[in-house]
Amino acid sequence: MIIRPHAHWFVRLFSWHGSVLSGILFRLGLNLLMSVVAIFCLDWYETLGVKLTLAPFSLLGVSIAIFLGFRNSVCYARFTEARLFWGGLLIACRTILRQVHAISPADAPRITALLMAFCYSLKHQLRKTDPRKDLQRYLGDETDDVLRRRAPTNVIEMKISRWLGEQRRSGAVSDIVFTQLDDSIHQLSQVLGGCERLASMPLPFAYGLLLHRTVYLFCTLLPFALVPDLHYMTPLVSVFISYTFLSLDTLAEELEMPFGYANNHLPMDAMCTNIEINLLEMNNQRELPETPVPDRHYRLT
Amino acid sequence: MIIRPHAHWFVRLFSWHGSVLSGILFRLGLNLLMSVVAIFCLDWYETLGVKLTLAPFSLLGVSIAIFLGFRNSVCYARFTEARLFWGGLLIACRTILRQVHAISPADAPRITALLMAFCYSLKHQLRKTDPRKDLQRYLGDETDDVLRRRAPTNVIEMKISRWLGEQRRSGAVSDIVFTQLDDSIHQLSQVLGGCERLASMPLPFAYGLLLHRTVYLFCTLLPFALVPDLHYMTPLVSVFISYTFLSLDTLAEELEMPFGYANNHLPMDAMCTNIEINLLEMNNQRELPETPVPDRHYRLT
Amino acid sequence: MIIRPHAHWFVRLFSWHGSVLSGILFRLGLNLLMSVVAIFCLDWYETLGVKLTLAPFSLLGVSIAIFLGFRNSVCYARFTEARLFWGGLLIACRTILRQVHAISPADAPRITALLMAFCYSLKHQLRKTDPRKDLQRYLGDETDDVLRRRAPTNVIEMKISRWLGEQRRSGAVSDIVFTQLDDSIHQLSQVLGGCERLASMPLPFAYGLLLHRTVYLFCTLLPFALVPDLHYMTPLVSVFISYTFLSLDTLAEELEMPFGYANNHLPMDAMCTNIEINLLEMNNQRELPETPVPDRHYRLT
Amino acid sequence: MIIRPHAHWFVRLFSWHGSVLSGILFRLGLNLLMSVVAIFCLDWYETLGVKLTLAPFSLLGVSIAIFLGFRNSVCYARFTEARLFWGGLLIACRTILRQVHAISPADAPRITALLMAFCYSLKHQLRKTDPRKDLQRYLGDETDDVLRRRAPTNVIEMKISRWLGEQRRSGAVSDIVFTQLDDSIHQLSQVLGGCERLASMPLPFAYGLLLHRTVYLFCTLLPFALVPDLHYMTPLVSVFISYTFLSLDTLAEELEMPFGYANNHLPMDAMCTNIEINLLEMNNQRELPETPVPDRHYRLT
Amino acid sequence: MIIRPHAHWFVRLFSWHGSVLSGILFRLGLNLLMSVVAIFCLDWYETLGVKLTLAPFSLLGVSIAIFLGFRNSVCYARFTEARLFWGGLLIACRTILRQVHAISPADAPRITALLMAFCYSLKHQLRKTDPRKDLQRYLGDETDDVLRRRAPTNVIEMKISRWLGEQRRSGAVSDIVFTQLDDSIHQLSQVLGGCERLASMPLPFAYGLLLHRTVYLFCTLLPFALVPDLHYMTPLVSVFISYTFLSLDTLAEELEMPFGYANNHLPMDAMCTNIEINLLEMNNQRELPETPVPDRHYRLT
Repeated sequence: MIIRPHAHWFVRLFSWHGSVLSGILFRLGLNLLMSVVAIFCLDWYETLGVKLTLAPFSLLGVSIAIFLGFRNSVCYARFTEARLFWGGLLIACRTILRQVHAISPADAPRITALLMAFCYSLKHQLRKTDPRKDLQRYLGDETDDVLRRRAPTNVIEMKISRWLGEQRRSGAVSDIVFTQLDDSIHQLSQVLGGCERLASMPLPFAYGLLLHRTVYLFCTLLPFALVPDLHYMTPLVSVFISYTFLSLDTLAEELEMPFGYANNHLPMDAMCTNIEINLLEMNNQRELPETPVPDRHYRLT
Repeated sequence: MIIRPHAHWFVRLFSWHGSVLSGILFRLGLNLLMSVVAIFCLDWYETLGVKLTLAPFSLLGVSIAIFLGFRNSVCYARFTEARLFWGGLLIACRTILRQVHAISPADAPRITALLMAFCYSLKHQLRKTDPRKDLQRYLGDETDDVLRRRAPTNVIEMKISRWLGEQRRSGAVSDIVFTQLDDSIHQLSQVLGGCERLASMPLPFAYGLLLHRTVYLFCTLLPFALVPDLHYMTPLVSVFISYTFLSLDTLAEELEMPFGYANNHLPMDAMCTNIEINLLEMNNQRELPETPVPDRHYRLT
Repeated sequence: MIIRPHAHWFVRLFSWHGSVLSGILFRLGLNLLMSVVAIFCLDWYETLGVKLTLAPFSLLGVSIAIFLGFRNSVCYARFTEARLFWGGLLIACRTILRQVHAISPADAPRITALLMAFCYSLKHQLRKTDPRKDLQRYLGDETDDVLRRRAPTNVIEMKISRWLGEQRRSGAVSDIVFTQLDDSIHQLSQVLGGCERLASMPLPFAYGLLLHRTVYLFCTLLPFALVPDLHYMTPLVSVFISYTFLSLDTLAEELEMPFGYANNHLPMDAMCTNIEINLLEMNNQRELPETPVPDRHYRLT
Repeated sequence: MIIRPHAHWFVRLFSWHGSVLSGILFRLGLNLLMSVVAIFCLDWYETLGVKLTLAPFSLLGVSIAIFLGFRNSVCYARFTEARLFWGGLLIACRTILRQVHAISPADAPRITALLMAFCYSLKHQLRKTDPRKDLQRYLGDETDDVLRRRAPTNVIEMKISRWLGEQRRSGAVSDIVFTQLDDSIHQLSQVLGGCERLASMPLPFAYGLLLHRTVYLFCTLLPFALVPDLHYMTPLVSVFISYTFLSLDTLAEELEMPFGYANNHLPMDAMCTNIEINLLEMNNQRELPETPVPDRHYRLT
Repeated sequence: MIIRPHAHWFVRLFSWHGSVLSGILFRLGLNLLMSVVAIFCLDWYETLGVKLTLAPFSLLGVSIAIFLGFRNSVCYARFTEARLFWGGLLIACRTILRQVHAISPADAPRITALLMAFCYSLKHQLRKTDPRKDLQRYLGDETDDVLRRRAPTNVIEMKISRWLGEQRRSGAVSDIVFTQLDDSIHQLSQVLGGCERLASMPLPFAYGLLLHRTVYLFCTLLPFALVPDLHYMTPLVSVFISYTFLSLDTLAEELEMPFGYANNHLPMDAMCTNIEINLLEMNNQRELPETPVPDRHYRLT
């Protein structure tokens, strides 16, 4: 079990790491500037008989909050689903190895290597990084053949399936046990297919674009609507409201595609190591990799 | 895995493609016109003692936002479900072929052809386009017979099932392996039935109609309620609020029926090619179709 | 696949059919009357020092919108679940017949008749109409016995199950194939049990009652709160707001029990015909019923 | 199928039964009193320079509405889940008896009795009532032994399982049929475990407490905020708003634990009778219990 | 079945226990202080021409309520999922023991011990407490070996699986019964994997941080916005609004990680005892542990 410690709440309240604050600092700066402009323009601006009152902004702000809430739910659901698939991957790997141990213990090391290759290949496929080094560790000579393929992770799953087919043809496993293990391999298929689905199909682009545009324009005009009432307090309140809206917008965007290296993305490196520890231990191996520990910024990758 | 690159956010902020903006331009123009009318009528309009204040519009606007949020969730859920079925189709095709390879490798090409015919037939059924050309590639002489039927996709599934029944009768597969493969074919049934359900049963029509009417009337009356306070700023704020509401209404409508060719619809052409690449590679075939790439407007069909 | 065409949006914007407008016309008329009363009473009414301002109505209106949104989600979920069961019925019927074809093709006509009797009996049970005519077509002499029972649909399912038991006892199907078909029959059980659950257990009555009462009282008092500000515009705005709230209330009520004949209810007649077309075609029958087509008011029953 | 008729809407609009109104009458009376106090204190109250304006109450009211909406969704989900389990119980009982008929018809009466004992025991366990009378009808001499146990419902399930184990040991059913029936018995386990989960783990207590406190305080202070504007209309509007909030709070509380005898609770008596009718009919028994009918207050227990 | 009695509502309305009130008392005190400061500064503060009006706070407050509502839903869903896993653990333990009784009753005591060891090991793993004492009771000499491992709970599951493998190799159970029990063991895997997933992956940290910061700043500034209108009533209304927001924020945080000892966390001690009572009773054992009863503060651990 990976543990992700958090610093004391008070310490992080004023730290950058782990919050999305750093990503929106520039835009908050712009908003601050706009507030100052609004204060200085106020006199000239009122002589024109033009007033931006807060009422339409209230209506718009609540509407944007409702739509932001919707987008947040949807992006968080994607993040949760991705996490569910990687949790399911751990369960599937354990189950397959458990069944192999119950049926044909001699094959456990070979299957362990294939399962680990599957996990690392999936990780690299989702992050679009080079899997060669990791696959080499588990597949040895087969690596080149696998890497030449378009869908290497699926090819590795085929290798497990082929081993099972051979077991059945040689009579080592009955048809019944064959179907049982085939069901477990099918769980790998579902993790693979599910992750590919999340990675290849983002949220409809128009949602993000629409909310970006609306939130930006809203935050830009807001100081001019606040200034007649708040005067010198405008920067404080304007930056505060903008901070709330911009942060949620940015966070939703980060969660939409949870397979990267960002702070709130899935720590797939640690997860792969965790699966490896579990599988090796089931093989009664003594020397295990170290349990992944977050760095001093509380980050796991 | 299909990759759908996005242009840099800044570039697209001012582009038409991928946003729903182009679809609602005409209506935003009308709203602009209405705002100008409201400004010019203001004086005459106040002499009548009639005032449209913003308060009732605030109440109504927030209510509409809540209902729009509901409709968006529901339409997005339909889009997600459709994507889930097509993701499940990839998984089912891979699983069936994997099982055929483990059991009866000689039949792999025939089953691959039937699976691809199933996918293309489903795609054309959902888009109401002519499947002849695609089916001809995979079914050859059987094409005419299939196309004469009312439910061609189901007939193709029957062909896979009939092959399996023959294998069982000839004793090539035991009853147990038969049921295992039958379960996998059942997954095709569920994708087919699920997609037909989505396609034949839209959201209750009254929802769309009710929100259309309400959003339109709201946007038309809005300038008259804004003008007493905002005066010359009316067009800016009115178009801004209208843009938010109309975009979400249009986007929900687009997502409701995700099987078309629109920007936010499922790229079923690319998905079929992707399934084909996966299946052919599992058969160790060398020459694979090219991975689908979005066009310069970032569109896949 | 049933197709439900929609008229062009513009045509229906001003039509009755398919919208819930006609159902609430009387109540909108009352609201209009109330607005006129409010305008005429305004002067006398202000002398009393009593003012209904919009602020408490804003608070109440937004609250009602939130609760209406909840009720809408819940009723729509019931509608979706009912649709899911009928989609599952098509899938289950196809699967059972597919399996019968793979195992014992000679029994296909008998099983087809029982499956159709199941579908029609379920339809009539849910709509509380007389199933005799439809059952006679498929069950012949057995009809009277079935209709004498309290749970005729379940009795028809028992007949399919009894056929399967006989096949097993006679050795025609092995235990394994028996369990496979038994699983498919279990899907019929789940559709039957699920539909019965929806039909026998509406939404807690208090929800509907509470919202009805609240929405009505709100719409009745609204004109008196609007009139001090809007004066002659009161009827327009009041009817507009009432239309939005009453429509959603009515629509939710319609979706709550989706097994009737109303516009937004499940077209179970068409669905039964669709299942019949699919099953007969799987039996290679030439003469099929006509695909159901909506009438000129875009309605299917 | 149980039918729960509703009185005409208009009749019930002014009736107590079925609405939660009677439960909150006392609290609405208090609110009315508070409104009258507020009207009389107004003059004295304004001399203090203290004004409760509606603006902060608007903010708070909308927030409470959002949180009440959340609590309502969550409690309704509990109610729905409970209903789903009891619907699943009917399906599981039918399926087990159907399978017993297909496999070993002679045992049908014994299994029917055990299934009914399971249903009644579950009902009494959930309502914390005495099951002796009902169990005696089905279990005869075994009743005492069952009632001496801490988990009697589970013990009854064990009896069904033990019968199945004996059938297998005696060779009457093959291992395959054994697993099929064992899966069906597992459905009983899931209903039992699920209902126990709902009954033993209410919503986190703090939610209810927090909303109670907030709603009560809100309704108590509301008249003082309304009175400066509304004057004599205060009682009407204040009671109206309080009615909406208190009703939803009360209804949510009622739905949270749906296993009692209240109006919106599950009619488990009727459901048990319904299961009995279904099972006896499957055994071709002629004399069936009467279909449960709601009393004149439209209540089923 | 564990019973968790509640004190009468009125008694607890003014009690600390079970409410989150005690946790936020300090922060409410700060808010009270701030309100008093606001009242005293009002005169000096108005001479600066700076006014914090309530309008922007209304907009912000409603937005925060929407986002708090989202976070509450999400944290409550985590709590519910955790409860579901522990409910599933009870069902899985009962099912495994039921199947062992039907197949190989002599092994029931050994399997009961392993199942209990699994439950206690899972509990201690999730709470990060020392499992030695509990495991010693069930595993005896094997305890040391288990505790030396990195994933002890998984190792215990392996022991059950190894027993099953031996049964199969010795011919005591057929392949079919083997797969049936293997499926039941797989349910343990899913509970284990699911709980590990919840424990190792909290809500994205930024959500909590963002809402904390926003809620705190909001509550701190609120008195200054209320004071111009409410004057002496400021502390009452300000503390009331703060109480609502801070409580929900705190409660959500408590539910996010439901495996601790807090009031609203899962009572895993009681749940383990409950599983033990159920299993021992299925073994016909007479002496059972006592049913867990909440202490006088209505707490179970």
